[in-house]
Amino acid sequence: MAIARTLATGPRILLMDEPLSNLDAKLRMEMRSELKRLHLDTDSTFVYVTHDQLEAMTLATKISLMKKGKLQQFAPPLTVYNEPANAFTADFIGNPSINLIPVKVEEKRENILVLDMGSHKVRFTSKGNADTRQGDILTLGIRPENIEITDEGGLEAKVYSTLPSGMETVVKLETAGLILTAVVFGDSDFRINDTVKIRFRSNRNHLFRKEGDQERIASGSLQSL
Amino acid sequence: MAIARTLATGPRILLMDEPLSNLDAKLRMEMRSELKRLHLDTDSTFVYVTHDQLEAMTLATKISLMKKGKLQQFAPPLTVYNEPANAFTADFIGNPSINLIPVKVEEKRENILVLDMGSHKVRFTSKGNADTRQGDILTLGIRPENIEITDEGGLEAKVYSTLPSGMETVVKLETAGLILTAVVFGDSDFRINDTVKIRFRSNRNHLFRKEGDQERIASGSLQSL
Repeated sequence: MAIARTLATGPRILLMDEPLSNLDAKLRMEMRSELKRLHLDTDSTFVYVTHDQLEAMTLATKISLMKKGKLQQFAPPLTVYNEPANAFTADFIGNPSINLIPVKVEEKRENILVLDMGSHKVRFTSKGNADTRQGDILTLGIRPENIEITDEGGLEAKVYSTLPSGMETVVKLETAGLILTAVVFGDSDFRINDTVKIRFRSNRNHLFRKEGDQERIASGSLQSL
Repeated sequence: MAIARTLATGPRILLMDEPLSNLDAKLRMEMRSELKRLHLDTDSTFVYVTHDQLEAMTLATKISLMKKGKLQQFAPPLTVYNEPANAFTADFIGNPSINLIPVKVEEKRENILVLDMGSHKVRFTSKGNADTRQGDILTLGIRPENIEITDEGGLEAKVYSTLPSGMETVVKLETAGLILTAVVFGDSDFRINDTVKIRFRSNRNHLFRKEGDQERIASGSLQSL
C-alpha cells in the first residue's frame, strides 16, 4: 500500500488527502485503527484532510475545522465535541447531530437562566456567568445522548420514529412543538406514537448566539420546569 | 420526491431498490426516519433492497438476509442482531463487527462449557444445552459492546488503538494473542499501549460451528477463568 511505501523513507511529515475515501465501510473502519496505530509507531506528523467527520474525530490528535476557507476551531477532537466554539462546529461534529433549539432568555439570575423553548421552559445552570440578558434569542444545543428516556423525566414526548441498530437506538421525539433526537444505548426499541418522559443529563448542554459567528456563550445543565 | 408521488396512488406494496444510496450521510440519516414514519402512516408494505446493513437494521420490520442468493435469516432486525442464525449474519449485522474467536471445547458439563481461546480460558454458561462435545473447534462471537473495560475484569489487555467519536469510543484491545474490539459509551478515551482489565457482560455471546453453514449452536454468558 502506498502509505507503507511512503513511510519506508522515514518522513517527518506525511500529507494525506482523503486516503480512505475509496474503501468500503468495513475496510475503512479497520484502516482507521491501523492508521492511528501507524501514527503512534512512526512518530511522524500526519496532516490528514477529510470531509468525513467521524474520521476526523477518531483519528486526529487535533482537528482544524474549516468552513468556507475560514478556521472555525483548532482543538483536540473531544474538545471540539464537548466545547464546540460555535453552533457550526457543534452541528458538524457528532452523529446523529446535536439538537439545536431556538430559545428566549426569560429570566437571568447570576448563572441561572430560564429559557423559553416555545411551549416548554427549562432552567439552564451555566458553569460560569453567561454573557446574555433577558429577552435575548439564543440557540440551545443538546447532544442526542444527553436526552434520557425515563419515567422520572419532567417532559412528555411522543415517539416519532425509532432507528434501532442493535447496539443503540436513535429515537426521534416530538415534544413542545419540536422534534428532538435522542440516542439510547442498548437494544431497547420503542413503539412509534407511544408517549414517554424525558429529562436532560450532563452539564455539557450549550448556548450559542443566534447571530454572527454563533459562538458558544455558556455550557451547563438543564432541567425541565 | 419520487416516493411521495408513488404513494399518492395509494399502493399496497412499494418496491424500493437502494433509494437513499445517492444521498450524503447526514441527509440519508434524516430520510431513514422519514421513510420509517411513512411506512407506518401509509400502512403499505415496503420491500426495500439495500446493502447498507445499518439501513436494514433501522428501517425493517423484518430483514431477509441473503448470501450469494441463498437466504440466511428472515427475522426482525433485533432478532437477527441478538439471535443470529449463523456466523455470517452475526458478522454482517452490527458495526463495529462482532468479535469472532476460534475456540476449543475443553470441558463440557451440561450447559457449562470451558472454552480454550489459545492462551486464555473462559467459562461459557449456555441458556440451553449446546450440541457440542469435548475437543470440538467452534467460533465464539462477542459483540463489541459486551466487552467491558473495568478494574474488576479478570483478563488483562493492552490498548492497541482507540477511535473516540465523542458519543462512544471504539477500543481495539490486544489480549490472549487476539485483537478484540470493544465499544465504550461516553466520551472516555484510552491511551494506546496502556494495560486495562476487561470482562464480558450479557448472556448474548454466541457459539457457532466452525464448518459448513456455521450455524449458531448456543448463546450464553462468559466468564474469564
